[in-house]
Amino acid sequence: MDLTQKIRVIEDFPKKGISFKDITTLLKDREAYHYTVDTMVNICREMGADVVVGPEARGFVLGAPVAYGLGTGFILVRKPGKLPGETVSYEYALEYGTDTLEIHKDAIQPGQKAVIVDDLLATGGTALAVTKLVEKLGGEVVGLLFAMELRFLNGRETLKGYNVHSLIQYDE
Amino acid sequence: MDLTQKIRVIEDFPKKGISFKDITTLLKDREAYHYTVDTMVNICREMGADVVVGPEARGFVLGAPVAYGLGTGFILVRKPGKLPGETVSYEYALEYGTDTLEIHKDAIQPGQKAVIVDDLLATGGTALAVTKLVEKLGGEVVGLLFAMELRFLNGRETLKGYNVHSLIQYDE
Repeated sequence: MDLTQKIRVIEDFPKKGISFKDITTLLKDREAYHYTVDTMVNICREMGADVVVGPEARGFVLGAPVAYGLGTGFILVRKPGKLPGETVSYEYALEYGTDTLEIHKDAIQPGQKAVIVDDLLATGGTALAVTKLVEKLGGEVVGLLFAMELRFLNGRETLKGYNVHSLIQYDE
Repeated sequence: MDLTQKIRVIEDFPKKGISFKDITTLLKDREAYHYTVDTMVNICREMGADVVVGPEARGFVLGAPVAYGLGTGFILVRKPGKLPGETVSYEYALEYGTDTLEIHKDAIQPGQKAVIVDDLLATGGTALAVTKLVEKLGGEVVGLLFAMELRFLNGRETLKGYNVHSLIQYDE
């Protein structure tokens, strides 16, 4: 299935000059959605995942069904103040300023093999932060899996040394 | 399976006096997570759903795998400014002030039978807002399904006339 046909491109969102790749048109299409999740489940299985981790909020939309299809638990990575239990956090740089993500301290068992799932690989900043959080808890990141990848933003450079996979690639 | 055993209760979160029901301990437990999603899929099937709708952000964590298990598409309801396409919005009252939710104008086809899935039924304000959005687009809300219900907040009164179901109920 050609998934690029299922992605709607919206110009100048969220700001002028950005060509936004809208995955909601894929998610609402039952065949495309199931094909996407099934494909991601198979890749996670090959990566040897025994847990799936997804960052707020679009990472939940693909990460949770992939965990369900794979037969593992699902771990949430959230913005500060959203997780109620004891957390560890990781601060990372943005173009202007910083951002922080959190994970529950008891979310991952040492030695667990995690795949990080998100909708989009752009600069890789968020994905690297999630990777660091999993590793802080003693987990092993056996792969990072994205529905879409904006190759011109060089996210794979940020994630060098990790097993990175995407289903759809954009060169502009 | 007694799912209440899988929910962690955290006192005084997010503020003093609130006994927060933390579903992340259920989500990371592969058996409890799969049992929960499977049970919700069966209930959605009985309700006659042909699409699943979930509000940001915890509604994505259960709504997306339920849609996958059921074999339907998944529709996102989000906070203002997050959906890139043309949207319709619904403003609703909170204890202090108001909140707004949005859905893409083309997310639901007229006559589609939607089940709204979320982790928690509290006062029902968010769930009613999602219901109104689906109905604005001509969809029929054939049910609302929650993992947990805080019965003492009378959410069912807010959702009177709708088919409401929850897996776990709390009376305090």
